[in-house]
Amino acid sequence: MSKYKELKRECYEANMELDALNLVIYTFGNVSAVDRENEVFAIKPSGVPYETLKPEDIVIVDFENNIVEGDMRPSSDTKTHAYLYKNWEKIGGIAHTHATHSVAWAQAQKDIPIFGTTHADHLTADIPCAPPMRDELIEGNYEHNTGIQILECFRDKNISYQEVQMVLLGNHGPFSWGKDAAKAVYNSKVLEEVAKMAYLTLQINPEAPRLKNSLINKHYDRKHGKDAYYGQQ
Amino acid sequence: MSKYKELKRECYEANMELDALNLVIYTFGNVSAVDRENEVFAIKPSGVPYETLKPEDIVIVDFENNIVEGDMRPSSDTKTHAYLYKNWEKIGGIAHTHATHSVAWAQAQKDIPIFGTTHADHLTADIPCAPPMRDELIEGNYEHNTGIQILECFRDKNISYQEVQMVLLGNHGPFSWGKDAAKAVYNSKVLEEVAKMAYLTLQINPEAPRLKNSLINKHYDRKHGKDAYYGQQ
Amino acid sequence: MSKYKELKRECYEANMELDALNLVIYTFGNVSAVDRENEVFAIKPSGVPYETLKPEDIVIVDFENNIVEGDMRPSSDTKTHAYLYKNWEKIGGIAHTHATHSVAWAQAQKDIPIFGTTHADHLTADIPCAPPMRDELIEGNYEHNTGIQILECFRDKNISYQEVQMVLLGNHGPFSWGKDAAKAVYNSKVLEEVAKMAYLTLQINPEAPRLKNSLINKHYDRKHGKDAYYGQQ
Amino acid sequence: MSKYKELKRECYEANMELDALNLVIYTFGNVSAVDRENEVFAIKPSGVPYETLKPEDIVIVDFENNIVEGDMRPSSDTKTHAYLYKNWEKIGGIAHTHATHSVAWAQAQKDIPIFGTTHADHLTADIPCAPPMRDELIEGNYEHNTGIQILECFRDKNISYQEVQMVLLGNHGPFSWGKDAAKAVYNSKVLEEVAKMAYLTLQINPEAPRLKNSLINKHYDRKHGKDAYYGQQ
Repeated sequence: MSKYKELKRECYEANMELDALNLVIYTFGNVSAVDRENEVFAIKPSGVPYETLKPEDIVIVDFENNIVEGDMRPSSDTKTHAYLYKNWEKIGGIAHTHATHSVAWAQAQKDIPIFGTTHADHLTADIPCAPPMRDELIEGNYEHNTGIQILECFRDKNISYQEVQMVLLGNHGPFSWGKDAAKAVYNSKVLEEVAKMAYLTLQINPEAPRLKNSLINKHYDRKHGKDAYYGQQ
Repeated sequence: MSKYKELKRECYEANMELDALNLVIYTFGNVSAVDRENEVFAIKPSGVPYETLKPEDIVIVDFENNIVEGDMRPSSDTKTHAYLYKNWEKIGGIAHTHATHSVAWAQAQKDIPIFGTTHADHLTADIPCAPPMRDELIEGNYEHNTGIQILECFRDKNISYQEVQMVLLGNHGPFSWGKDAAKAVYNSKVLEEVAKMAYLTLQINPEAPRLKNSLINKHYDRKHGKDAYYGQQ
Repeated sequence: MSKYKELKRECYEANMELDALNLVIYTFGNVSAVDRENEVFAIKPSGVPYETLKPEDIVIVDFENNIVEGDMRPSSDTKTHAYLYKNWEKIGGIAHTHATHSVAWAQAQKDIPIFGTTHADHLTADIPCAPPMRDELIEGNYEHNTGIQILECFRDKNISYQEVQMVLLGNHGPFSWGKDAAKAVYNSKVLEEVAKMAYLTLQINPEAPRLKNSLINKHYDRKHGKDAYYGQQ
Repeated sequence: MSKYKELKRECYEANMELDALNLVIYTFGNVSAVDRENEVFAIKPSGVPYETLKPEDIVIVDFENNIVEGDMRPSSDTKTHAYLYKNWEKIGGIAHTHATHSVAWAQAQKDIPIFGTTHADHLTADIPCAPPMRDELIEGNYEHNTGIQILECFRDKNISYQEVQMVLLGNHGPFSWGKDAAKAVYNSKVLEEVAKMAYLTLQINPEAPRLKNSLINKHYDRKHGKDAYYGQQ
């Protein structure tokens, strides 16, 4: 029996959740889950529809993109996942979707402004939109370079991946992450909802102001600060 | 057996209805139901997903925010509910959501204009959007002060909580209430639907006029006036 | 046993279809079916939710608004239905909803322009929006006068109720009709879909031209003309 | 037993999928599947609702629009399908819908700009919108001429039907095709999703730039180029 059975199941369930939450059609998305001790991650096989996906189809890959276990080809975005796991040591899962409103903001090449407390409950910054990849990176190792593109964006904007657990890639779509695969999927759903709310906000009031700092900090702290009082202990 | 078993069930069912009506994702909402005689209310525990919520998880709290019964932490918005119950003696239930179109209007910081009879069947005024909380209130007892913010808004606009059973909090989202928890949830759904209709109305015609007073009064009266003839007696 | 059992069932099923097609929330709609021989019609009782509605709850009313059979109060819009049945001899069913996009156009007080063949497959004119009711009519017999308002609109625009089987009431919402109750409901659904398409069309291209006459006539004729070749014979 | 039993089943299933994917209401769509060897195709009967459609209702028609097998009248769009099969030898299935966002772009008479990788994963060009049919064609053999209209559009824009597997007909709606009926339906769904994303993109940023060529080519090639690495081999 595979030593990665549990990891595959975590990955499988998170992928199925992506489908259940209406974040994907057909095969437009993928989720992975990492095993830090063995330096491998489990990821969806490429191009397999959710209706037929089985836990044993999940592919195990190491951080150098070698297949460790599995009969199928891993997601075409595998190298992006590998790059993020290698560089961001505190993340346990990654999700990528083509969810409608998230993609619309990515195609619009705009950061999603922080307009309200739904957003501030999850992060204190605008949701960053990385500029489209530079041509020399596209020509090269595209999916690997997508990882570089994400890290460059976080470096340029001076934001932390532990606080801002989501990004839009210009002209492409969202990536999100978290302490495990389920949290990465949760962040994908929150991003899609916040993207839709922000879009509607600007339709109603093109001059809508950003949330003021006092409210940003209050909402974030009550959920994530040292005296957080949201949820059960 | 708990003397609040019935109250907990009313509260539980109203919370589940919020989910069934697609007004919430994850744990983004809460409903409470009051027991006026005992001066306590039942409220959803904080951060518990609807799929796993059980009637016995519901927490009983008094108007001073003391937990009277229950093993879990009550909703982080509990103090807002307490403040409203204490000050508004005729309400029996309160609902809070982050429903998409309601939040969009709240983030746009705009009252929802009364454009039609769907709106007038429920209230004769624009749906008020309270301005974002003043900084000195944010620094203090935030959720308690959210109650103050709502009451100030109703006082400033000179409207009655018995007639206008819903409010938007600027940058945050909607609160609604009613004679019981089910009515509070009903008002949340009506608010979301009216918010969506008003948004679309302005997209189609940015100059759309408000409903004229003769129609406002007619529609409200036929449902709520002394000679109301809507519904069964 | 009631001589109107079949009529009640037709009415009941058409009302339930309104709900199944997502054209109503709560009790925001009603459908009636007429019996021309007996000059009565069956209509939904007022304020009864669809989940609990039963065929035997349906009320039988004559064209003077007298209840002929039934224990419940008929829909508050009953007089509008009666007026239309009395004046438009060829219709067999009427539907009224507060469907979202239809209401948005009604609140915008705009006719829905004929932009495409989806529209032309059903009618060759813009979908008319009757101006909000005159104050002296509102003060009087409101629901009866809603019928007058609809007929005035068709007279002013010189359109035929047999060809244009739907109308928007300014600030209110849609009424539709047809050879029977099921067709009236079908027309409500088509109206809502056409309303949504027209809204999106104008968002994408505010200068979008109306469908040209040659296409209007072609599409209508192939479905409804004397040499119609759509559907089974 | 019919020699076309398998062809009818393929056609039936693809039609039912159109309904399951929410691309049609009522009878607003049709799918066909071709048998190249026998130069016939299977197509939905006209005006039959999806709930009651059965595999044996599917009609077999030859490329000159003669009914080869079947008791029902074929789709009113049959001649368009026949014309495309006759002229485009490499297609195996065709789908036609009135899906909401696709129709909105067709009514707006705008090509759908290629804004992102969701689009580029499927085709490298804008999705073409054929101008409304010329009056002399409308007067004549309308559905046959719809085929001419589509081919003229591809000729004028110098695009290949093997690469661009979808088109919008001005004022009407989308046609899509592919190697078989299932692929044609898949392309209808992708078109509707891309249409919605492009609409939202322009709402958020009316100046949104088209995807740059380096990214267009990269995404198309990784799925469809000679070294494609998307999906399983």
